[in-house]
Amino acid sequence: MFGSDQHRQHISGQFNHELETLKHDILAMGGLVEAQLNTALESLIERNSEKAIRVTKRDSEVNNLELKIDQECARILARRQPAASDLRLVLAIIKINMDLERVGDEAAKIARQAKVIIESNVSGTQFAQLRRMGRKIAETLRAALDALARHDADAALMVVRGDSSVDQEYAHSMQTLVADMKSEPHNISTILNEIWALKALERIGDHASNIGEHVIYLVRGQDVRHLAPEAVDDRLAKPY
Amino acid sequence: MFGSDQHRQHISGQFNHELETLKHDILAMGGLVEAQLNTALESLIERNSEKAIRVTKRDSEVNNLELKIDQECARILARRQPAASDLRLVLAIIKINMDLERVGDEAAKIARQAKVIIESNVSGTQFAQLRRMGRKIAETLRAALDALARHDADAALMVVRGDSSVDQEYAHSMQTLVADMKSEPHNISTILNEIWALKALERIGDHASNIGEHVIYLVRGQDVRHLAPEAVDDRLAKPY
Repeated sequence: MFGSDQHRQHISGQFNHELETLKHDILAMGGLVEAQLNTALESLIERNSEKAIRVTKRDSEVNNLELKIDQECARILARRQPAASDLRLVLAIIKINMDLERVGDEAAKIARQAKVIIESNVSGTQFAQLRRMGRKIAETLRAALDALARHDADAALMVVRGDSSVDQEYAHSMQTLVADMKSEPHNISTILNEIWALKALERIGDHASNIGEHVIYLVRGQDVRHLAPEAVDDRLAKPY
Repeated sequence: MFGSDQHRQHISGQFNHELETLKHDILAMGGLVEAQLNTALESLIERNSEKAIRVTKRDSEVNNLELKIDQECARILARRQPAASDLRLVLAIIKINMDLERVGDEAAKIARQAKVIIESNVSGTQFAQLRRMGRKIAETLRAALDALARHDADAALMVVRGDSSVDQEYAHSMQTLVADMKSEPHNISTILNEIWALKALERIGDHASNIGEHVIYLVRGQDVRHLAPEAVDDRLAKPY
């Protein structure tokens, strides 16, 4: 079917170009939701409702980019019939795309909670829990996106493993906020808004961990989902 | 490459068999997480901790089936290079599989909350909110899985559209529980456990809605994610 080597190279050059576009777009998606998360956290901590509104407005950009990437993946699968590592790349990007879109959703939720908290005009809290947890989760997401950009399975594994320390931070923050509710029942509504934001952060941490798993699959062809940390080490230690 | 029509038919017969296995497995996955949700709700309403434990134990079955289906999808894409509606089927199943696995996770969360509530031995609540919301969400998930089984885009669209009534039920239940926290601050911990279960139900409703969107894509090749309900109607009214 292919007339000449030149034609074949041309086809393969186009294919490479499509894969590069796809990689570029998924990293752009990562950058976009990372910016959404950071702006949402700033809106909360600075009590800046303009920033909160900016996040909710930009959510449609996240959604549009999700659809664009998904269409690119479907088109590549239909036309290029990729195999081996190219196929793994496309499959991993389909999943990473879903996780990133949901990170965007959670960032928008944090922005909505920030708006409610700002409007309720309660001046007491300094959001100590949310600041700490927010910083930790933003770092985790950044590490997952770096691992993706560099196709670094070891760095991705660190993200997957790191999740338990985030879980502890989350549990501690939640206990503190629940204790606050009991001692200040008149503040229950505002504290609940903080709890919703905290839960959104926890979710983002879960999605970052999922992204780490997808990067490991992409680079090593190993599916490490649902394994205990020791089992992940064991699985990855085997020759591949 | 293919020696004869007979060989070609043989290949295509195997391929059909693989697609049938995939459809069978995704419906089995749906049935499994549906059972997990119902058992989790029963454990809560009947204060039956044995049922709650059963749900958390079976979560690994859900995870294993997720991985199996994912591997089948990757194998079909690598070996069969499906096109058109076959490709859409595989892509839709990859996504439905992710949503179903997360429904399983949320069911396990409900079971864990049930266990905490049972152990805390508070006798007051009859879980009126959780019963009502649980029934609604179980119906929604069932409708999404029926639409998948029958490849019924109209039924899937009903699931996608129905989400706003579930949202209202959720908002009402949440308001009631928050009011309870304010009037009974000594019960805050238990009421929070109910709130976590309620939030898990809301998530399951979101996943059911996502599944409805994937079914519409599978049947009609139309991506209706992130569209307002009127826009979905408009999009689907166009010739396809």
